[in-house]
Amino acid sequence: MSLSAQDKIDLRYGPGTLPAPAAWTPVIDHLLGHRSVRRYRPDPVSNDQLTAIIAAAQSAATSSNLHAWSVIAVRDAGTRASLAECAGGQAHVRDAPLQLVWLADLARLAHIAEQTERPSAALDYMEMFLIGVIDAALAAQNAIAAAQSLGLSGCYIGGMRNQPERVAELLGLPPRVFAAFGMTLGYEDAGSATAAVKPRAPQPVVLHHERYGAVSDQDAGIETYNRVMAGFYESQNMNVRGTWSVHSAKRIADAASLTGRDRLAEALHNLGFPLK
Amino acid sequence: MSLSAQDKIDLRYGPGTLPAPAAWTPVIDHLLGHRSVRRYRPDPVSNDQLTAIIAAAQSAATSSNLHAWSVIAVRDAGTRASLAECAGGQAHVRDAPLQLVWLADLARLAHIAEQTERPSAALDYMEMFLIGVIDAALAAQNAIAAAQSLGLSGCYIGGMRNQPERVAELLGLPPRVFAAFGMTLGYEDAGSATAAVKPRAPQPVVLHHERYGAVSDQDAGIETYNRVMAGFYESQNMNVRGTWSVHSAKRIADAASLTGRDRLAEALHNLGFPLK
Repeated sequence: MSLSAQDKIDLRYGPGTLPAPAAWTPVIDHLLGHRSVRRYRPDPVSNDQLTAIIAAAQSAATSSNLHAWSVIAVRDAGTRASLAECAGGQAHVRDAPLQLVWLADLARLAHIAEQTERPSAALDYMEMFLIGVIDAALAAQNAIAAAQSLGLSGCYIGGMRNQPERVAELLGLPPRVFAAFGMTLGYEDAGSATAAVKPRAPQPVVLHHERYGAVSDQDAGIETYNRVMAGFYESQNMNVRGTWSVHSAKRIADAASLTGRDRLAEALHNLGFPLK
Repeated sequence: MSLSAQDKIDLRYGPGTLPAPAAWTPVIDHLLGHRSVRRYRPDPVSNDQLTAIIAAAQSAATSSNLHAWSVIAVRDAGTRASLAECAGGQAHVRDAPLQLVWLADLARLAHIAEQTERPSAALDYMEMFLIGVIDAALAAQNAIAAAQSLGLSGCYIGGMRNQPERVAELLGLPPRVFAAFGMTLGYEDAGSATAAVKPRAPQPVVLHHERYGAVSDQDAGIETYNRVMAGFYESQNMNVRGTWSVHSAKRIADAASLTGRDRLAEALHNLGFPLK
């Protein structure tokens, strides 16, 4: 059964909230269908599939063509289990046959500077760290879109930042390399139901025209989203207390809400990023 | 004239460097074709196209469903000219009919916490800043893929970080909002030739298996890439002195190589990111 553009838009924003645009392509249709999947069959991702996924990842833009990123493909069950522990015990990190760990990587540039006998003082700055993180994120997003087009599913793993030094040790990262996030990949174990498309806020919440405007201009959209998400929680039998707003506020309450990541700045210094 | 998978791979990696994988889809084919375009016709991007592009952007994953990003669509010629100045005088930032400025946005979450009368101390941490930047980057990459599928072209603008406070003032950004990068969008003004697909390094340079390994393991791949890029510079009549390695090393030599971005950490503090 194939869904119309309007079906796709309704799943993404809640029914009746946005007319599907006339501008529509198979690529847009594909991207709209994204779902984060957390249950996998053991069937492997092939090397041939991985080659195509990485080619898509490398086709993303990279700042000043510096290629300030790398990725580690982890298939070893022991390493996956250790990474799952680092990431707060998420079972799908252990169970998915492939974990891609996306790295902000300034070690290659440091090595190139050494080889060409040139200084590399800029690597110590916040800006270069940010270039690495953004390069990695653009590459990763192409990778997940490519993987999903091959019938695979995936999920970003921010929990890879819970214990950055331990992840670095597990993966043998040299100084100036940081695991920005992970990504589980594999075939969905759909069981009784496939993972759902999660609704997003109405476009006026995130899209501004010409200037940002007052934050309170977003209130009507946020209210709509709280209603759409209440319906989503119910449809998924999710036991979420309070609205999306309350749920989100809880996630940013204090240092303890960050599941260890309140010490990320310190960890980055330890990993060779002075962040000047 | 439609290109085969092998043609696309050859353009991306240099001829004869990688056999096309058997795993290939229209989405992968599309992503492989990415080109950064820096010359535009004045024809506008329609509101309908923008709706589709933003729907694709919002369909990307967002950490803990916090939506820690926003985007500003700038069409006003005066603002585009000012942004172009901020970004080091890049003519295409002025000339492209649409500039999307992608924001790490923690202001919405601060506002939601206020509304729900809850604390939001976690917003002061490096981790939350990083969530905003990564969320924005994932959304942006979906946006550019979607735009390109509509026949539009684009280019990321890291120069938006050259003068962060001035960009914030121009766009009326509230505290806790940072313009991570821009993106020109429009129809390519092909003139005598369309912009070329820029080659990337062989996969073993960025793709590691199980563990990172020694950085020097990448030397053979870097050597290949220097050769491929020499051919590319020549084919494009680009006057690049030295290899890609030398060119890259020059970009990271010192604080002055960062075109103002050596003060990014200070600018972020000024914009309401304590980066604890």
